[in-house]
Amino acid sequence: MEMAPISILITGANRGLGLEMVKQMIETAQPVKKLFACCRDPNGPKSEALQTLAKNHPNVSVIRLDASDLGSIKQAAKQVCSVVGAGGLNLLINNAGILSRDNLQTTTPENMQNTFNINALAPLVITQEFTPLLRTAAKASVIPGMSCRKAAVINISAFLASFESVKSTYNFLPALSYRISKASLNMLTVCAAEELRNDGILFAALHPGWVRTDMGGEGGDIDAQESVKGMLGVMASLSEREDGAFLDYQGKTLPW
Amino acid sequence: MEMAPISILITGANRGLGLEMVKQMIETAQPVKKLFACCRDPNGPKSEALQTLAKNHPNVSVIRLDASDLGSIKQAAKQVCSVVGAGGLNLLINNAGILSRDNLQTTTPENMQNTFNINALAPLVITQEFTPLLRTAAKASVIPGMSCRKAAVINISAFLASFESVKSTYNFLPALSYRISKASLNMLTVCAAEELRNDGILFAALHPGWVRTDMGGEGGDIDAQESVKGMLGVMASLSEREDGAFLDYQGKTLPW
Ligand SMILES: NC(=O)c1ccc[n+]([C@@H]2O[C@H](COP(=O)([O-])OP(=O)(O)OC[C@H]3O[C@@H](n4cnc5c(N)ncnc54)[C@H](OP(=O)(O)O)[C@@H]3O)[C@@H](O)[C@H]2O)c1
Ligand SMILES: NC(=O)c1ccc[n+]([C@@H]2O[C@H](COP(=O)([O-])OP(=O)(O)OC[C@H]3O[C@@H](n4cnc5c(N)ncnc54)[C@H](OP(=O)(O)O)[C@@H]3O)[C@@H](O)[C@H]2O)c1
Repeated sequence: MEMAPISILITGANRGLGLEMVKQMIETAQPVKKLFACCRDPNGPKSEALQTLAKNHPNVSVIRLDASDLGSIKQAAKQVCSVVGAGGLNLLINNAGILSRDNLQTTTPENMQNTFNINALAPLVITQEFTPLLRTAAKASVIPGMSCRKAAVINISAFLASFESVKSTYNFLPALSYRISKASLNMLTVCAAEELRNDGILFAALHPGWVRTDMGGEGGDIDAQESVKGMLGVMASLSEREDGAFLDYQGKTLPW
Repeated sequence: MEMAPISILITGANRGLGLEMVKQMIETAQPVKKLFACCRDPNGPKSEALQTLAKNHPNVSVIRLDASDLGSIKQAAKQVCSVVGAGGLNLLINNAGILSRDNLQTTTPENMQNTFNINALAPLVITQEFTPLLRTAAKASVIPGMSCRKAAVINISAFLASFESVKSTYNFLPALSYRISKASLNMLTVCAAEELRNDGILFAALHPGWVRTDMGGEGGDIDAQESVKGMLGVMASLSEREDGAFLDYQGKTLPW
């Protein structure tokens, strides 16, 4: 993604698509200026690969952000603020997410609430907490129009959140709580685009494809490398025309 | 709504659209066999009008159901089960709902969760608890195909839940938590339709119009009488063709 020198924050950056985003962002010819790679347990065994990357790339900071702990979101925003200062944060990628294989008959209130909290409420609170930094970045930038190099929030959504997808996919993978949480994330994306357009902050929801990660499983269509390469390309291409859009990793518009 | 003799349950039946539904259902030439009018505080002052109606119409039972108290949903299901027996419940109308006038910048986690719990999670749990009775009704009925006279769940949704509506309505009324909760309710509707089609239970989401109730305010386009007349007409017309649909009170299909 040729969009340096900018500052980017990614949630759920210790494995899967989040970790692959970090890799591709630092391995390009024009690496990002500052990359905040967030994970819920920076010193735990699941974050070792990320920590190793960070050790070799001083532009990467590993930051604690647990989507189920709203206090940690405030803390992360404070930390990032103290680093980026007057430049603000250019790009926030809400990537952390969970999948539960429930359906109407098997799901529980706890499961519904937990999935909603991680996949929809946390991105909302993260967006709230980082809006001042995104606004600062939009104001500080001399780039015309809207773009991910200026100020943007990318919400990693899912094709399963598409109402039009239910008929063809529900029998294969009901994932009721997941669909509801990601449809909620999509609605957040569209509303946030309306509300913060005048602040110059772009919003879009991206579907990464069906990817062979822990979540996607071995049956996925593509690997994380291909998915992230596609998504970074799409991000780099976004402008005010796509504000509030729902796109897949190849840039195709998905139906709600 | 000429669909007697059937049993119907309505939540939030003590005022607004719910109370008007009760009125029109008992005032027709063919009143329903059994009407379970649910409200959260049957003996409180806000339920007096409903209690008066019930006193004069022995086919109306007032039942306690608080959408924020999942235990009360289980209780209500037990009560209804003991009355309807082998006939089951033909029609469940998830009508109770709340509206909060928040936006991305003003909303709070508590507000998001509360609105989600009342408008989306409660209808889900209510559907779970009443599925056995709806299944019983579907099996007991000799009517071919799917219909509200046989076995159906109608979720009272809102145009604001439509992604396509955000551009034209957000500035006027952001209601972020409400939009997210009703989009969640719509997703529940579509998924439930897929999951329970083989049980013969029909699902649809209905938008009542912008109605002059406590929630809609005085600026609404229509009164509760017109809205409910329309919705009951739409309910009476539903068949397997509309399973999983999102329609307004005039039967027009709304975009997701
Ligand atoms: N893979 C697919 O096919 C696919 C398809 C559509 C959409 N998506 C979306 O793409 C995003 C990434 O998915 P993935 O395939 O990379 O999944 P993954 O391999 O399961 O990784 C999920 C990531 O989210 C993090 N996470 C989970 N709960 C968290 C919490 N409470 N706080 C902070 N981080 C948390 C995980 O951290 P821990 O290591 O601490 O658990 C991990 O880093 C998700 O939003 C997912 O819904 C994936
Ligand atoms: N009016 C409109 O323009 C409009 C437009 C689109 C959609 N809708 C939808 O239509 C439905 C009915 O709305 P309305 O206009 O009749 O609203 P309303 O006049 O405000 O009535 C709301 C009803 O929901 C009940 N309710 C709220 N919280 C509850 C809870 N925790 N447990 C049980 N019942 C609860 C209320 O009971 P209490 O008296 O105990 O509070 C009341 O009976 C709602 O789902 C609403 O979202 C309305």
